[in-house]
Amino acid sequence: MQIVCSDLEGVFVPEIWINVAERTGIDDLRLTTRDIADYNVLMRKRLGLLEQHGLGLPDLQAVIRTMEPLPGALEFLDWLRGVTQVIVVSDTFVEFAAPLMEKLGRPTLFCNSLVVDDRGRVRDYQLRQPDGKRQVAEALRRLNFQVIAMGDSYNDITMLQAAHHGILFRPPANVVEEFPQFPVTTGYAELQAAIARLLVRATASGNGN
Amino acid sequence: MQIVCSDLEGVFVPEIWINVAERTGIDDLRLTTRDIADYNVLMRKRLGLLEQHGLGLPDLQAVIRTMEPLPGALEFLDWLRGVTQVIVVSDTFVEFAAPLMEKLGRPTLFCNSLVVDDRGRVRDYQLRQPDGKRQVAEALRRLNFQVIAMGDSYNDITMLQAAHHGILFRPPANVVEEFPQFPVTTGYAELQAAIARLLVRATASGNGN
Repeated sequence: MQIVCSDLEGVFVPEIWINVAERTGIDDLRLTTRDIADYNVLMRKRLGLLEQHGLGLPDLQAVIRTMEPLPGALEFLDWLRGVTQVIVVSDTFVEFAAPLMEKLGRPTLFCNSLVVDDRGRVRDYQLRQPDGKRQVAEALRRLNFQVIAMGDSYNDITMLQAAHHGILFRPPANVVEEFPQFPVTTGYAELQAAIARLLVRATASGNGN
Repeated sequence: MQIVCSDLEGVFVPEIWINVAERTGIDDLRLTTRDIADYNVLMRKRLGLLEQHGLGLPDLQAVIRTMEPLPGALEFLDWLRGVTQVIVVSDTFVEFAAPLMEKLGRPTLFCNSLVVDDRGRVRDYQLRQPDGKRQVAEALRRLNFQVIAMGDSYNDITMLQAAHHGILFRPPANVVEEFPQFPVTTGYAELQAAIARLLVRATASGNGN
């Protein structure tokens, strides 16, 4: 059996923090690990900014609820779920992703979670495990799945490497240069064609043809 | 993060082989591992019967397409997918389950597969791995999920044992007797209440309360 592990942000939905920054007007929420390399320091800064501006989880979810999947994403995902199994694997938090997952027809999501107090304030975050994306691809291999992984950026690379097949979707130029082993796709039609070829190949070998 | 691994047949949909037997009139397709203990022998017999009656995969899928999820299953599953992550774990074949999964809103399915030739004849079957249900629960634990497993019968027991919490749904009396450690539920409202209690407990401990 085949399975697709796919990144969420940049593949099916826009970048969540950037949209939260735009819609709340808090520019510093745009900072990413390109600006502050240590993820823990970056997240502390983000949580501090939310506290400072009095934004709790319900406020953030209200903002995120106004976001939409990328144009064409839902149609592509519906096709994909009709031909194989799919797990969305993300570094985001389930509390952020939930409104978007609903708009995507609730595919299974493996990600991280927030610690929220009774008043809705985001007090902390919990990463499910280090290098969580790679671990998902490896776990699915151990369950004897043929794993196809796809993502758009650096934080997807170990997952793509751990899978039987890795595909880049709309990656930045430096990722393309640094990891030339992965095919690059720039639209859903192209991505669909790349996956369809891999599925046909797996079915043919399953039939002993 | 929590995740629910759930059996398919008996929990969300009726028993597939029994329905195929009823709708095709081939009584021997009703035989289960209670009648022929060796699963491989049983499957060879089933494949032989299909061949003998000239039934290919498209015929079987046409029969299965007339089946419906159990009354209340879709509503329960929609609720479940709104509050946590779900993977359906089954010993059936993806080619059989597909029409039913569509009616359930395409939750992720981990199961087995058939080997089908160009003319649609079922030539063989492929089990993804031995004791596949248990292995899924163990893999999800290694991914640091809090695993809730549910199922209706003997073939679910190792998965329920490997999970953090196991719940029986409409089990036969001998399973209840033999495995008194698992709570027994007989309807979706009761099952929903049992799961809701476990999710609240996990969230509370996540908040450090």
